[in-house]
Amino acid sequence: MSRIDSKKFFGWSGPAAGAAIFRIIKNIGPLSRTDIVKKTGLSKSTVSVHTKKLLEMGLIKEAEAENKSVGSVGRNRQLLKFAKNNGVIVAIDLGATSLNVGLCNLDAEIIDMKSKKTLVNNGPKIIMEEIDIFIEKLLESNEIADKKIFGIGMGVPGPVEFSKGTPVSPPIMPGWHLFPLKKVLQQKYSCPAFIDNDVNVMAVGEKHAGLAQNISNFIFIKIGTGIGAGIICEDELYRGSKGCAGDIGHIAVEGEQEFCPCGNRGCLEVVAAGPAIAKKAKIAAQNKESEILLSFLNIKGELTAEDVGEAVKRNDKASIDIIKNSGQKIGQVVSRLVNFYNPSLIIIGGGVANLGNYLISSIKEEVLRHSTSLAVQDLEIELSQKNEEVAVIGAAAMAVNEIYSHDNVTEMVYLDSGSD
Amino acid sequence: MSRIDSKKFFGWSGPAAGAAIFRIIKNIGPLSRTDIVKKTGLSKSTVSVHTKKLLEMGLIKEAEAENKSVGSVGRNRQLLKFAKNNGVIVAIDLGATSLNVGLCNLDAEIIDMKSKKTLVNNGPKIIMEEIDIFIEKLLESNEIADKKIFGIGMGVPGPVEFSKGTPVSPPIMPGWHLFPLKKVLQQKYSCPAFIDNDVNVMAVGEKHAGLAQNISNFIFIKIGTGIGAGIICEDELYRGSKGCAGDIGHIAVEGEQEFCPCGNRGCLEVVAAGPAIAKKAKIAAQNKESEILLSFLNIKGELTAEDVGEAVKRNDKASIDIIKNSGQKIGQVVSRLVNFYNPSLIIIGGGVANLGNYLISSIKEEVLRHSTSLAVQDLEIELSQKNEEVAVIGAAAMAVNEIYSHDNVTEMVYLDSGSD
Repeated sequence: MSRIDSKKFFGWSGPAAGAAIFRIIKNIGPLSRTDIVKKTGLSKSTVSVHTKKLLEMGLIKEAEAENKSVGSVGRNRQLLKFAKNNGVIVAIDLGATSLNVGLCNLDAEIIDMKSKKTLVNNGPKIIMEEIDIFIEKLLESNEIADKKIFGIGMGVPGPVEFSKGTPVSPPIMPGWHLFPLKKVLQQKYSCPAFIDNDVNVMAVGEKHAGLAQNISNFIFIKIGTGIGAGIICEDELYRGSKGCAGDIGHIAVEGEQEFCPCGNRGCLEVVAAGPAIAKKAKIAAQNKESEILLSFLNIKGELTAEDVGEAVKRNDKASIDIIKNSGQKIGQVVSRLVNFYNPSLIIIGGGVANLGNYLISSIKEEVLRHSTSLAVQDLEIELSQKNEEVAVIGAAAMAVNEIYSHDNVTEMVYLDSGSD
Repeated sequence: MSRIDSKKFFGWSGPAAGAAIFRIIKNIGPLSRTDIVKKTGLSKSTVSVHTKKLLEMGLIKEAEAENKSVGSVGRNRQLLKFAKNNGVIVAIDLGATSLNVGLCNLDAEIIDMKSKKTLVNNGPKIIMEEIDIFIEKLLESNEIADKKIFGIGMGVPGPVEFSKGTPVSPPIMPGWHLFPLKKVLQQKYSCPAFIDNDVNVMAVGEKHAGLAQNISNFIFIKIGTGIGAGIICEDELYRGSKGCAGDIGHIAVEGEQEFCPCGNRGCLEVVAAGPAIAKKAKIAAQNKESEILLSFLNIKGELTAEDVGEAVKRNDKASIDIIKNSGQKIGQVVSRLVNFYNPSLIIIGGGVANLGNYLISSIKEEVLRHSTSLAVQDLEIELSQKNEEVAVIGAAAMAVNEIYSHDNVTEMVYLDSGSD
């Protein structure tokens, strides 16, 4: 290719080698120095110098020998591993109606988490206070000093300009347009902060610790109040040219005419997401097509997608049809994306994904029917197994990936060396 | 991300630095040794050792000083550039009804080219003979020795398993299924050969020397007998998990019911590609909706998409409507892909793309109407400017990119050094 990223060539000398050694230990460690020489092609002396430096910097640590007699293990056989407990990441998952704040180690494993119902449209002032209270409590109860926060990752339910870390015209986040989330968090906690939209964060979470750990090309689809997708391309999150890749909620569904607030008609999220399911359920109840839904409606005055899920569990035919219908519409759109993108995995998550297997089987049916045979040959379509916490894991993993990027570690090693 | 490609870490010592220096010279040269030190962060001595080695290997050469008084330019100011004329690439563009064979330099610039009408469904035996004859003639008339062929790149009009270099169940290439193209070419010409489908090759051509030289994320759409797309993601060709990414010809178009040989109904290429245009033209002629088309039909007995293009040039309303209608259907599919992929450029190429501006304006209209406003904010939709030769350039560029990949050049430098 004719373009070049000059940063790729920064420091092939000492510091870059140190960063490469760190990355290989972090990703596939524990490893001995001899393993590292074999896997990197670096000389023994280079590996020796840099592992010493990485140990001093606290980026890696010696793994305890399994027989506990460390003394008997030769220095070159001593295993080295990522010092994942050397600091913490704060991971924030802000939803339309909920807030989860996790305290994670540097491998994005959740140490502790606090959750509450709240409303994102309460605006930044109230929500930021709630976040601060949660962080304070988490640090206190886990006896962690402020300065141990290495970074903050956060997912929000709307479009984000990633480099600036601000929501941009988010439809369901009134009061948040251009709010400087990244800046506010960085100043308050004196550490780097990274903000992205919730589906991107969830896709990163599935890649880091979910169903997609060994998958290079996949799509994560969140079905809740809206519908959106996070795209992983060759192991990296793909954001598109304006950062809005994966915005599949406004793809038109064949034969649908319903108006969408975006100005178009028949958009996928208007005809298939949570509110559409609730609306169809209300009509079914009023038309006396479902006794269960009617009884729910009489008791509560309104119906939600969760009520439909409850009725499905009781084998209510009208509710099953409603869920299948949503699955078909989603499957229709997904089948087109499968032809275009040829992923090897599609993960379905979000609130509506909890509504049972009828949804996913309808999606699968449509994809098998409409995608080309080569594109579906090894395609898996799965429900997220970590639906409740994948956004927190993903927010932490996003922060860790950024903080320990190759360029950043190269610079850390370089600065630690004085000069090189 | 948690997966690791150990090849990324091969040889951060000498040879990798040599490869990095080569790449920066190839991509943004001519550069002086001082420039290289600045851009790479490598030490003066490392740059000096490796540029000497790369010069000896013939991978780079000294650029002539502009004032021709080389002696007066200090060694560190002497400009170095990619030795693009140190060998040739044979680039083969096999279409459904045509064959182009180009002789290119190592920067994928066409030195000479031979073209003929032929039929891919004549099968491998006849076509491979035609290719051999063209290569022989090109080498002879340009006085190039066999051993100067550094590599062969080839695009074919059907699905290809890239690593094996064989067509896989190609619908319009009877007799070519699993034909070992890569192996046959490699053995005959004693050089590496790389085979891909035509749209991928064309996308690489646009990236290397066409409209997309500075674009990281774009889609190339070829409209001819069929419709397909080549996807560039973060500057690299994206093939998908089974190598069939971009297969948009079989995405269903809303409201269309026509049967497609693939088994589905309403597939884009059945309702909007060249044969569909020709078929609609025949109906228009028979219904006396167009005098021009009727006169063409009476003279020739059949109509082609080119005839419709000719009628459009003469302002024939029925023909303009036919082209616009195809553009709308293509635009409907493209608008969905734009929401999902958020590219900054879409390039339209292929035979039907030559039919004038009505096609592209209809596509643009649909995309503007149906894609989200953020996704179209900086989106350009353009006709390929090198439609006739972009496949040859792309086939050559694909071969050059593979031959001079970072890993390969690292190995060349390593082997040249004996050991390191």
